[in-house]
Parts: sequence; structure tokens; C-alpha cells
Amino acid sequence: MKLASLRELFLHELQDIYDAEKQVFDALPKMAEAATAPDLKNAFAQHLKQTEGQVARLERAFERLSEKAKGKTCEGMKGLIKEGNETVKLRGDDATRDAALIAAAQKVEHYEIATYGTLCTWAEMLGEREALTLLKQNLSEEKLTDEKLTKLAESHVNVEALVR
Amino acid sequence: MKLASLRELFLHELQDIYDAEKQVFDALPKMAEAATAPDLKNAFAQHLKQTEGQVARLERAFERLSEKAKGKTCEGMKGLIKEGNETVKLRGDDATRDAALIAAAQKVEHYEIATYGTLCTWAEMLGEREALTLLKQNLSEEKLTDEKLTKLAESHVNVEALVR
Repeated sequence: MKLASLRELFLHELQDIYDAEKQVFDALPKMAEAATAPDLKNAFAQHLKQTEGQVARLERAFERLSEKAKGKTCEGMKGLIKEGNETVKLRGDDATRDAALIAAAQKVEHYEIATYGTLCTWAEMLGEREALTLLKQNLSEEKLTDEKLTKLAESHVNVEALVR
Repeated sequence: MKLASLRELFLHELQDIYDAEKQVFDALPKMAEAATAPDLKNAFAQHLKQTEGQVARLERAFERLSEKAKGKTCEGMKGLIKEGNETVKLRGDDATRDAALIAAAQKVEHYEIATYGTLCTWAEMLGEREALTLLKQNLSEEKLTDEKLTKLAESHVNVEALVR
């Protein structure tokens, strides 16, 4: 593959996260099902809805760039989801499994934080203000989801795993 | 696989990052070779040395926990490295390729930041203070590497990719 400009690289990366978000959308119901703590189940279910909105924002970003929305297989997310699926299949007590699910989900969030961080920088440099606004919204949601998962882990899931 | 306690989960995750760091150690020379900007080449070379030290710290952590140092295949990192290899093979002008390499490397850093963040929390809860000190050092280095890559991108690589 040949990339001739920052704009082409930006589009290439946008196709990467578009595919990644769709992979997350497919994986989250399994995470929600595997979780035991009601607030964790709920966090995964909420993030599923949010992910749907993020995919829609990416489609609007492609539109603003006068490009067709399309994905290219995101190998990074494929690996993270594979690892997440291993976690879903772990046996053990409920709290330990929940702690493992949170850890797996935070790796996914960090992939997205890194990617949206890069995309926002490039959108700004390219003067793509409408795309930037949309990407910033997705970045902000991923950061909040990561913080929420940390809070769930620290408020009770880890403690329950420890004292079980 | 069955995990019966937070300690077992902690060890499982330690084996994950131990394998991940070794994968990073194997991949970094290719990243350094593919980079064009001397300061980026240098950053990858420096991080290779740092990664060697991080692997050694993980081995000390296993020792402090009276466990044998061993890895379990880290599927997340496998995917990230696969994506990194695609980036290494990208054709295009030098600055655009450098910008792409930085983006790929920051995804790797974020995987490690997420994982060490989780490991530090669990080490603290388990009262494993020596392991915690070692893991905190690795976490801090990964965060600094991520910041350094952002600075390289923002100081000149992205601009060169834009105006090329």
C-alpha cells in the first residue's frame, strides 16, 4: 500500500478505527453476558449503545471529507478482541472474572484512545474541523469509559476478587 | 483456564505482559530500520534498550513472587505488532511513513500503559510491594515513551508529512 500524503494516511487510519469500532460493537454483548456485577453488565451495555453512536459519527466524518465510509481490517483490534474472548471463556469465581473482563476492556479503550488521539491531531493539521469535532467526541467518550471501568474496579470488583 | 483468585489473575496478566514485552523487543529493530527521521530512529533504538530493562524487571517481579518467569501468548500484542508490520511495509514519502510509524508505536505503548495500570492496582491490593515498585517503573517508562512520541510527531514529523 502506498500513502502519498498526510491526508491519505488520515483516511487510512479512519478506515482502521471504523473497522475497529465495528469489531467492538460485535464483541461487547459477549462481554456484557460474561459479566456478573450488575453495574459492570450495565457499563458494557451502555458502551454498546455509545459504540453505535461512534460508528455513526465516523460515517458523518467520512461524509464531511467527501469520502465513502469503509473499513480496512484492524489487526490490532482483532488481537485485542481475541484476547477479550479468552477472558470471556475464563473459568473462576465471579469477581475474579469481572476483574479480568475490566482489564480486557481497558486494553480496548486504550487502543481507541491512542488512535483517536492521533486522528484528532491529524484532522486539526489538515484543517478538517468538522471531522475533528466528531473525532473529539469519540475520544472523549472512550476516555470517560476507561475512567468508569477504573472506578468500577476500584470501588468494589477488585475488593470482591480479593476477599472471595 | 481457571483462575481461582486475584493473585492467580495477577500472575496470568504478568505472563501476558512478559510475552508482550518480548514481542515488542523483537519488533522494535524493524521499526527503527523503517524510520527515516534520525530522532525517531533514535527513539526506537532507545526504547529497545529500555524494553530489555523492562523484561529484566518483570523477571525480578516473578522472582519476588516466588514464581517462575514465563509468558503466555499475548494475542493483543500479536495483533498490534501485525498492524505495526503493515505500517513498516507502507510505501510513501519518508515523513508520512514516519508519522504512521509513530501512530503504530503509540498503540503499542497504550496497550502497555493499560496493562501496567491494571497490574499496579492488583499488586497494591495484594500487598506485593516489591513487584509494585518494579511495575510502576515500567509503567512510568511507557508513559514517558508515549509522550516522547507525541512530541516528535508534533514538533516536526507531522508538519513534514503535511508540507511534503
